[in-house]
Amino acid sequence: MVKSPEQEHPQEALGWAARDDCGLLSPFKFSRRATGEKDVKFKVLFCGICHSDLHSTKNEWEISTYPLVPGHEIVGEVVEVGSRVEKFKVGDKVGVGCLVGSCGSCDSCHDHLENYCPKMILTYGSTYHDGTMTYGGFSNVMVVDEHFAIKFPQNMPLDAGAPLLCAGITVYSPIRFFGLDRPGTNLGVVGLGGLGHVAVKFAKAMGVRVTVISSSARKKEEALQRLGADAFLVSSDANQFQAAMGTMDGIIDTVSAVHPTLPLLGLLKHNGKLVFVGIPDRPLELPVFPMISGRKIVTGSYIGGLKETQEMIDFAAKHNITADIEVVPVDYLNTAMDRLNKGNVKYRFVIDIGNTLKEA
Amino acid sequence: MVKSPEQEHPQEALGWAARDDCGLLSPFKFSRRATGEKDVKFKVLFCGICHSDLHSTKNEWEISTYPLVPGHEIVGEVVEVGSRVEKFKVGDKVGVGCLVGSCGSCDSCHDHLENYCPKMILTYGSTYHDGTMTYGGFSNVMVVDEHFAIKFPQNMPLDAGAPLLCAGITVYSPIRFFGLDRPGTNLGVVGLGGLGHVAVKFAKAMGVRVTVISSSARKKEEALQRLGADAFLVSSDANQFQAAMGTMDGIIDTVSAVHPTLPLLGLLKHNGKLVFVGIPDRPLELPVFPMISGRKIVTGSYIGGLKETQEMIDFAAKHNITADIEVVPVDYLNTAMDRLNKGNVKYRFVIDIGNTLKEA
Repeated sequence: MVKSPEQEHPQEALGWAARDDCGLLSPFKFSRRATGEKDVKFKVLFCGICHSDLHSTKNEWEISTYPLVPGHEIVGEVVEVGSRVEKFKVGDKVGVGCLVGSCGSCDSCHDHLENYCPKMILTYGSTYHDGTMTYGGFSNVMVVDEHFAIKFPQNMPLDAGAPLLCAGITVYSPIRFFGLDRPGTNLGVVGLGGLGHVAVKFAKAMGVRVTVISSSARKKEEALQRLGADAFLVSSDANQFQAAMGTMDGIIDTVSAVHPTLPLLGLLKHNGKLVFVGIPDRPLELPVFPMISGRKIVTGSYIGGLKETQEMIDFAAKHNITADIEVVPVDYLNTAMDRLNKGNVKYRFVIDIGNTLKEA
Repeated sequence: MVKSPEQEHPQEALGWAARDDCGLLSPFKFSRRATGEKDVKFKVLFCGICHSDLHSTKNEWEISTYPLVPGHEIVGEVVEVGSRVEKFKVGDKVGVGCLVGSCGSCDSCHDHLENYCPKMILTYGSTYHDGTMTYGGFSNVMVVDEHFAIKFPQNMPLDAGAPLLCAGITVYSPIRFFGLDRPGTNLGVVGLGGLGHVAVKFAKAMGVRVTVISSSARKKEEALQRLGADAFLVSSDANQFQAAMGTMDGIIDTVSAVHPTLPLLGLLKHNGKLVFVGIPDRPLELPVFPMISGRKIVTGSYIGGLKETQEMIDFAAKHNITADIEVVPVDYLNTAMDRLNKGNVKYRFVIDIGNTLKEA
């Protein structure tokens, strides 16, 4: 007999779940597994709201199962450790991002790229090794294999650091991997949202020259003056694009809506790289000659491995990089999701789980 | 006053030209410039017919100017050299490919990548430094700056070697540049035409494992038994594709018709490279998640630089690589173009200019 989410494991848990694709979440009682010998159990303190939480809640990628407890930008405090845990002790601050498991034996896993393991287990909505559903960080407690837990740096704010666990690593990884991290590099960042604004911060900390490319002209002042970008292009301004043709070594494209690629290819130097990290739900257009004639590269990147995520958060702590956030109580969750859907947030909502998620 | 093509230069020349976009060519009297101090003048012996000659003749890329003398897979014998020519002497065999000029001062030119110089001058249909139109190899004589002339190896057949000057370098360059040339590499080659069949030969000579991917099942035997490919996939066979998912390090896609990219992305390993060398006249579809989830690269490559073209032809000579050709007289040109349009050639027509192009 299949047990209910509330009964299948021994440790009580409380979260907020979507029950169907209507887009609303509500309190949900479920359970967490017993703390295994390599597991850390932690009290969730803060959890960011990522755009993919919105997609998943509404089943827009058509892979959601309900009840669904979203949340994969999770920061908490360790309350119990298994007998063989090496990295953590009770009281440590801990971070969990998009992944809680992988096969551990494939080439990707051996290369510290659990994010490309074909059997990776997502933090929510995946089937765990024990056959039960994974539930995310919109909940009061989590139990996670220590391999998938990040040591949260001492000087990193718990709330503003949380979004780095998804938004941060998603942009940090391709900037490093594709060699766009060298001082003097000309980097474009398309879209100034949750991902884009931290991409600007990371790139600037690396000594890179950053041009923000946005459909919204009113983001110019913010991009240049508050985030420290070096230049700003409005997508609709053909003259601005013409003037910037062939100037960029790479572009990190964070936009998940379908949008034209031809103008972006035009901005690249020869051998330049256009890197998608947003996930449009329909194919984009790929104009072949503009790519061929400059031997330009179109590619993408998907979050990051655990080793690299630790490196990212340590780099962020060293350079005082955090996300710009709006902290909200858990009761505000449905309103926050609605505002996120409308792009009405600068730049990330973070739920104060620790202080506001309580038994009714 | 603008002089006519026959009068603008001092040296008489005879070729075959398209006069409009109807697709037909006919004899055409024009002229070649005086042999400059860095120029070689050569009698054209053979010239391959490339698919782009067909596109250009019919103005399918909408950049053609008429009269248009196509031909950029040209082999000849030097009959005169300028006073400062260093590489050639009278009687040498010489090859000319797609380029006859470039700026000489940009980064691409300094990097021996004249093929990516923004001011490159194509062998036909471009404006030369002196302001006159360039005319290609469907002609009895050419005058070319020695920098753009290839030393044709002694043991390379003049007819079957000619197509390497475009088809050969177009596939050789990306196999080398994108690191798909290492023994043990799994390489896919899409399309078994003029480019594809030499891609198979080059890759095999490098010790690479080659899978030919074709829409035509009847090419299987030829690919495997005559060209020496290791495997064959029919584009329409979903089961074959499923079985080959995630097995290839790279794919050289030679097809210039619009075709699906999703199945090709699926064939790639993580970090695998899909390299377009054909030029579809409309954008292809780019499915983003399948690219992101394996950090796969989509890119392209456009012919090659002069240094690399010399290296390619020397490599071909060493490994006895030539194109499979059908040699035709110049009078057969319109019929050959029509057959090429229908895909009815294995795999390259080469015009015997030396023996068949005569004054009427």
